[in-house]
Amino acid sequence: MWQLLQFPLCPFSRKVRLLLGEKGVAYEPVRESPWMRRDEFMDLNPAGQVPVMVDTERGVTLIDSSVICEFFEETVDKAAMLNGTAVDRAEIRRLTLWFDTQFFSEITAPLLQERMLKRLVYKQSPDGQVLRAAMKAAVGHLDYIDYLLDHRTWIGGATMSLADLAAAAQISIADYLGGIDWKSHEQAKRWYIGMKSRPSFRPLLSERMEGIPPPADYEKLDH
Amino acid sequence: MWQLLQFPLCPFSRKVRLLLGEKGVAYEPVRESPWMRRDEFMDLNPAGQVPVMVDTERGVTLIDSSVICEFFEETVDKAAMLNGTAVDRAEIRRLTLWFDTQFFSEITAPLLQERMLKRLVYKQSPDGQVLRAAMKAAVGHLDYIDYLLDHRTWIGGATMSLADLAAAAQISIADYLGGIDWKSHEQAKRWYIGMKSRPSFRPLLSERMEGIPPPADYEKLDH
Ligand SMILES: N[C@@H](CCC(=O)N[C@@H](CS)C(=O)NCC(=O)O)C(=O)O
Ligand SMILES: N[C@@H](CCC(=O)N[C@@H](CS)C(=O)NCC(=O)O)C(=O)O
Repeated sequence: MWQLLQFPLCPFSRKVRLLLGEKGVAYEPVRESPWMRRDEFMDLNPAGQVPVMVDTERGVTLIDSSVICEFFEETVDKAAMLNGTAVDRAEIRRLTLWFDTQFFSEITAPLLQERMLKRLVYKQSPDGQVLRAAMKAAVGHLDYIDYLLDHRTWIGGATMSLADLAAAAQISIADYLGGIDWKSHEQAKRWYIGMKSRPSFRPLLSERMEGIPPPADYEKLDH
Repeated sequence: MWQLLQFPLCPFSRKVRLLLGEKGVAYEPVRESPWMRRDEFMDLNPAGQVPVMVDTERGVTLIDSSVICEFFEETVDKAAMLNGTAVDRAEIRRLTLWFDTQFFSEITAPLLQERMLKRLVYKQSPDGQVLRAAMKAAVGHLDYIDYLLDHRTWIGGATMSLADLAAAAQISIADYLGGIDWKSHEQAKRWYIGMKSRPSFRPLLSERMEGIPPPADYEKLDH
């Protein structure tokens, strides 16, 4: 059986878990806190990052969420998440990377730093200015999602794709950390409620990071 | 015909150009300096980064070097660069990302900042401490390449792959900017000389960035 090394607030692990959920691939989540830089973990992945997937029986290690997603997309036909022509697939991959890198660096990463790492590791209080900048960036990203959904049914095109999973994964962590305000983003909100309602999403929403409670509405399906 | 928006010292554009060269895909390089943030360019790619490829006749835009590489890997059979089983492909993609992200952020990006952007844009002199840190990081990365080549013929496995193109692209820019010392890295050096000798590589080596001359040995095939 596959093991997935991760922690509950890692957006890249969430993207992988949504994909595995949609495809019906069984796996055992194994807790890894990359900021501890455990020797055995650094040996496994010199980049020191989660997610990592390991199949101990077959001796296979998969490193990096995009590598993991491409692997299961290639090996499991069910719930294809890179659909269409080569051009369609390029657009799905572009938007997946957009959320993995731009949304992450402007919003999720600073929120994790200020609201998770400072509490758990550095014992410092969050920097209000950094939090406000992240929340402001989130408004811009929700505008972009509204714009995309004005032109297409799903984030990456005509069908649900890896781009929806990547976007929902980042947003769900930002939302957990109080960084999302849905006001005047009806399109994006409707799309996100649809994502939240999927059976692949439900188990993630009920997980908690110790010492860091989410806002009251976080798990609700009409919010 | 495809247009490739890029500038001569962008390592991601170089990776794409090596791939297009190996596959024999014709394209017209078009100069883009992303730090100018031209309006038309920002409209084309909201992330504001090169490389971007455009096929104006078909109205197709490809954004991000990994998206571009996957696209041509899917559409052009010649010179396959993601060979083997799904597990082999995962290892090639992991190492490609390793050079695209770890090598880039530790070595190529600070060298570009200190030796290119500070000269061309900010009119400042480079920070010696940052340069020394990048050169030290380069030694670690060459060690890792030596280690990989102790265990396999090419960086990503038994055949030449996208991982070799990604590694050679980053190294060639670091080398242009004086950040590479091959001393006691015979394995890595032999591999790199092999890469430099390829017809896909030769045209890149003769390009220059205005005002930033490379070291004397940069283009030589025995260095
Ligand atoms: N490109 C990687 C990014 C993974 C990543 O940034 N993971 C974070 C946790 S959300 C991590 O492990 N950070 C620890 C570190 O960078 O030292 C992926 O897509 O898997
Ligand atoms: N993930 C991107 C990275 C591209 C990238 O970082 N390009 C740099 C030039 S080497 C750039 O355009 N930087 C301008 C900016 O980030 O504003 C890719 O693989 O294409």
